[in-house]
Amino acid sequence: MTDTRTAEPLRRGRPGYDQRGILEVAVAAFNEHGYDATSIGMLAERLGLSKSAIYHHVASKDELLALALDEALDGLEGALRSAEETTGTAAERLAQVLRGAVLVLTDRLPYVTLLLRVRGNTEVERAALQRRRAFDHAVAALVAEARDEGSLRVDADPGVVARLLFGMINSLTEWYDPAGPVPPDELADTILALALRTPA
Amino acid sequence: MTDTRTAEPLRRGRPGYDQRGILEVAVAAFNEHGYDATSIGMLAERLGLSKSAIYHHVASKDELLALALDEALDGLEGALRSAEETTGTAAERLAQVLRGAVLVLTDRLPYVTLLLRVRGNTEVERAALQRRRAFDHAVAALVAEARDEGSLRVDADPGVVARLLFGMINSLTEWYDPAGPVPPDELADTILALALRTPA
Repeated sequence: MTDTRTAEPLRRGRPGYDQRGILEVAVAAFNEHGYDATSIGMLAERLGLSKSAIYHHVASKDELLALALDEALDGLEGALRSAEETTGTAAERLAQVLRGAVLVLTDRLPYVTLLLRVRGNTEVERAALQRRRAFDHAVAALVAEARDEGSLRVDADPGVVARLLFGMINSLTEWYDPAGPVPPDELADTILALALRTPA
Repeated sequence: MTDTRTAEPLRRGRPGYDQRGILEVAVAAFNEHGYDATSIGMLAERLGLSKSAIYHHVASKDELLALALDEALDGLEGALRSAEETTGTAAERLAQVLRGAVLVLTDRLPYVTLLLRVRGNTEVERAALQRRRAFDHAVAALVAEARDEGSLRVDADPGVVARLLFGMINSLTEWYDPAGPVPPDELADTILALALRTPA
């Protein structure tokens, strides 16, 4: 069989679990019990692996956290970058970021859930918060451009509007059900219709 | 001096701290460390009181949680009730609920923050979740009425729209700064402008 996941940047290893599989179980445990309360021993038990088998794939619990937060942040920053690379109006670029963010959240729900809980207790968490802040600033700048262009539904502080729009999007981590009846693209349409004069 | 807080439903007691003062410190600790990780001993230390002085005001940690969640839920349910008692259009009633919820959140930020973290681990938490669900259903029903009336900006599932609107409002617990430049009424205006055809 061909490995169809050649684009996968994470290391593969022991049959049964590759780094990605371990990461998924770790993120679920972090979200359920909190990062601090989760030990490599607990993960080993959940995975049915020895601790040393886990350490074959990742150096530490901290590295698992870093990989998980990268997964969320790389997605969001990718959505921002592809929007910034297009040549449309500010409204079109903002629409592209918002839609992209909805798709990242629905696709990587546990990773973004973890990101949104980060409070800056460790070096890894502080680095993630810094990337989140840079993302927020870039979105607020796009909101300001869209407002100046006359494309925004409201004439309020762009930072506040950006936070409210991402309040809607981030709430997906609280209630979105991937098995539910509303597909991600339709959710994005609804959010864009609320945000912008001309649905994009 | 006249006690201007005669409407205050909570018990008063030992000079220095009444039940309300203990509750405020408890809610801050619950939000900071988590409910499970907070003990009456920790609260006693923060308050500079003995544990038995605390037990003079409240029967248990569980009662503190119940009082705190009531504070948030009573506020939200009050906003809903006064909207439902008016005779305006669905859009006007929805606007009143949304504005009322913004005012409750900004006024009782730590209490609502605690409410939003409740996951149903105890009887008190499950009762609070049930009240929250009833509130959400009532808001979704108002959204449906507003949609049928043609007042909504979007023609999407009322449950989804209600969740997105409260995603915006609830995000205030993540970023709203009571000392910041945006007054609660202006925030409510922005959220209403995003939600409804005619800002109310």
